[in-house]
Amino acid sequence: MVGSLGKVYLVGAGPGAADLITLRGAEVLKNADVVFHDALVHPDLLALAERGRKIAVGKRCGKFTTAQQFINKRLVDAARRHAVVVRLKGGDPMLFGRAQEEIAALEAAGVPYEVVPGVTAALAAAAEAGISLTQRGHARSVAFVTPRVAEGEAPSTWAQNAAAADTAVIYMGAGEAEAVAATLIAAGAPRKLPVLVVENATLPESRRIALTLEELPQVASYGATGPTLIMLGRVFDAALAATSDPVSLPACKTA
Amino acid sequence: MVGSLGKVYLVGAGPGAADLITLRGAEVLKNADVVFHDALVHPDLLALAERGRKIAVGKRCGKFTTAQQFINKRLVDAARRHAVVVRLKGGDPMLFGRAQEEIAALEAAGVPYEVVPGVTAALAAAAEAGISLTQRGHARSVAFVTPRVAEGEAPSTWAQNAAAADTAVIYMGAGEAEAVAATLIAAGAPRKLPVLVVENATLPESRRIALTLEELPQVASYGATGPTLIMLGRVFDAALAATSDPVSLPACKTA
Repeated sequence: MVGSLGKVYLVGAGPGAADLITLRGAEVLKNADVVFHDALVHPDLLALAERGRKIAVGKRCGKFTTAQQFINKRLVDAARRHAVVVRLKGGDPMLFGRAQEEIAALEAAGVPYEVVPGVTAALAAAAEAGISLTQRGHARSVAFVTPRVAEGEAPSTWAQNAAAADTAVIYMGAGEAEAVAATLIAAGAPRKLPVLVVENATLPESRRIALTLEELPQVASYGATGPTLIMLGRVFDAALAATSDPVSLPACKTA
Repeated sequence: MVGSLGKVYLVGAGPGAADLITLRGAEVLKNADVVFHDALVHPDLLALAERGRKIAVGKRCGKFTTAQQFINKRLVDAARRHAVVVRLKGGDPMLFGRAQEEIAALEAAGVPYEVVPGVTAALAAAAEAGISLTQRGHARSVAFVTPRVAEGEAPSTWAQNAAAADTAVIYMGAGEAEAVAATLIAAGAPRKLPVLVVENATLPESRRIALTLEELPQVASYGATGPTLIMLGRVFDAALAATSDPVSLPACKTA
């Protein structure tokens, strides 16, 4: 690869289960010389990269174990030495990832790149629960939001946006469930709005809990340790009605 | 299959290109005895169902060629005669499909089912354009909406929901671009808001057009014939800045 540049593929790993990556993503992995992957990517997915060197980057439990700028630099450096470089990201790269920063670094260095989309966790959780996020007659809009903001970033209107939509899915919010519930209620979401909390969607250890928005703070005691979505809206009415006592679920160790 | 019931798989076909289905979706297709598929599903995807009978159902260009109730009935009937029945739906089944009606019919008949999620068109279009829908510092929320309502359904607040979100993607709205633009502006979206219109995302004939919201009605003259998304928000600022004259794109035959 002297004098020429390899190509960097930003690939969506999908929601969790290894067989929910796309055919294209799996093919790219198979041909990878090196794979920079998020900490939570399924081992069976990494196994698809038969001959590629695997390097864990990214974050876990909200803590950045590798600074973004360092990841950007490593991608560019790798493209100078390898033909096929993969950046494997949980879910879809263009939703709550930091793909834009990686793309900007690649463009600045003149490195060719391609983004391979993935199944985002919200749609996989909806599939697993058998609940459409946009049931006819109930929901014509769904908002994907996160309460997370970058350092120095202006306060976000995520709660207003979530409260405005017919259905809302909150990414990376379960660790602060009490604040999330309070902020949503302050933004106008009804206290009795049905909420479906989904941990580890599509994995064998997946858990689902239906409760009302005002009960959401209880989630803190459920001991979620994997990626957890907070989904809310009238489309979850039936899920809530089918739940007799959400608190009776086994308590795990506190996250 | 006398006396026992087969299983129905509602499978997301992904955004268009055949290799953007999931590994799980491809595996289910391979084992299918019969496949009921949307009209717009890629022929290469259907070819994955080597031994399955293929039956086109669903709609094209907004016209229902097969009534939903009839599809529901055929799925149940097929499960009485076959072990593996696939309902292959464009994009993801749980987003703007009518999966809930199909699931209700299957549950009422006691037919086991499973939903296999897919890559939705918005994320594939973002990947193709190299634009994250939730760039840090610019967008912490993205809304997927549709102006389509069912007959007899209450008027939707889709435009308010779209205008409230940092980024919005409008599904099935390009055919009424002028009304969509007017409704969004009335809901508070800025006239100069950047809009990215993406037709046939991930297919060889894919087209992208960047313009402002007030210019959106021009899209009617572009002659879109395939599925078209209207994407709007500040994350498309750079795409708009890079466009010199959106009107100069070749005009095709009117949709």
